[in-house]
Amino acid sequence: MHHLKVIAFDADDTLWVNEPYFQEAEQKFCALLEDYLPLHTVSQELFKTEMQNLPLYGYGVKAFMLSMLETALRVTENTANPAILHKAIEYGRELLAKPIELLDGVTEVLEALKGKFRLVVATKGDLLDQERKLMKSELEPYFHHIEIMSDKQEKGLPKTDSAPRLPAGGVLDAGQFAQIGRAARAQHRWPRRSYPLPHHLGAREN
Amino acid sequence: MHHLKVIAFDADDTLWVNEPYFQEAEQKFCALLEDYLPLHTVSQELFKTEMQNLPLYGYGVKAFMLSMLETALRVTENTANPAILHKAIEYGRELLAKPIELLDGVTEVLEALKGKFRLVVATKGDLLDQERKLMKSELEPYFHHIEIMSDKQEKGLPKTDSAPRLPAGGVLDAGQFAQIGRAARAQHRWPRRSYPLPHHLGAREN
Repeated sequence: MHHLKVIAFDADDTLWVNEPYFQEAEQKFCALLEDYLPLHTVSQELFKTEMQNLPLYGYGVKAFMLSMLETALRVTENTANPAILHKAIEYGRELLAKPIELLDGVTEVLEALKGKFRLVVATKGDLLDQERKLMKSELEPYFHHIEIMSDKQEKGLPKTDSAPRLPAGGVLDAGQFAQIGRAARAQHRWPRRSYPLPHHLGAREN
Repeated sequence: MHHLKVIAFDADDTLWVNEPYFQEAEQKFCALLEDYLPLHTVSQELFKTEMQNLPLYGYGVKAFMLSMLETALRVTENTANPAILHKAIEYGRELLAKPIELLDGVTEVLEALKGKFRLVVATKGDLLDQERKLMKSELEPYFHHIEIMSDKQEKGLPKTDSAPRLPAGGVLDAGQFAQIGRAARAQHRWPRRSYPLPHHLGAREN
């Protein structure tokens, strides 16, 4: 532990409330389509769309918004009242405007760690969203920077000789680095939730 | 120059063709709504939406897709045939699937620079998109990593004592760093185009 230099924090659902807001948006979305399909079925269709879109759209609210819209169009066979689609967009925009509610103990933990380690936010979310949330959270002063991760980095794909495919960041070895917030993927809706961070976030060759 | 260590390249419209694809998608989108408004007017409305959405959605294809959809709903007062919205989504997905066409001389330049400097991609685009494009381009071996920038970083907002608001990256001073691809913002459609990179990309305090 005495070599530890950098601690990376996941943000959504580690520093602040996130998933409950998505669930609320999803419930409202499903209700929009109840003339077409039972709530539970719309929910499943939305999940199917999100999973299919993951390689294309990645994570974050914009991906979620597009998945809602595509789901609405698909399950209604392109006959949905456009007002439904307008509402779905609104629900997405509301998500982007949610207040930040810190999770219990976050400030105390950051206070205890600051100055002793470099703290960074490492997330697969969208940079703009995460910056905005970090600013709203007033936790910004604790963190050195925000690192945006990708699934590819997480899979630790083989490096080429001249360009290791490792995330940007300080040059560290694995012992100098720790991660907070490896939220379980157990729930079936994991695309929007916190994700395991790559093992090698800190390890990089020069 | 002899101190130069890192060269950051913009990607879209610096390494490969990008803007012409957006223009093509935009033209097709405007044609979808010609029963409602002249092409030129739809184009202006789309631009207005994109500019309004910039703080909320940032850059990239997903932002563009949402702006197309919102524009279609707005100019038709939520009466557009949903098939139009479905088409707009398709145009966006096609953008994500475009082949990579390298710009002239790119490979030669990278060949000349490799091994002598650390080359990175610095972009305001979406990480997933840029990774995908970099892989398709076969230029991946030249680059150490992809850095996602934000407008906030570009504005060089004042740093706090404990967390400089500077992008992740190696610790460099300004003299050790150069940027390629500070495309002009002269065109009125700059949100989708290459953007000036922040002056201080390489400068960071520890």
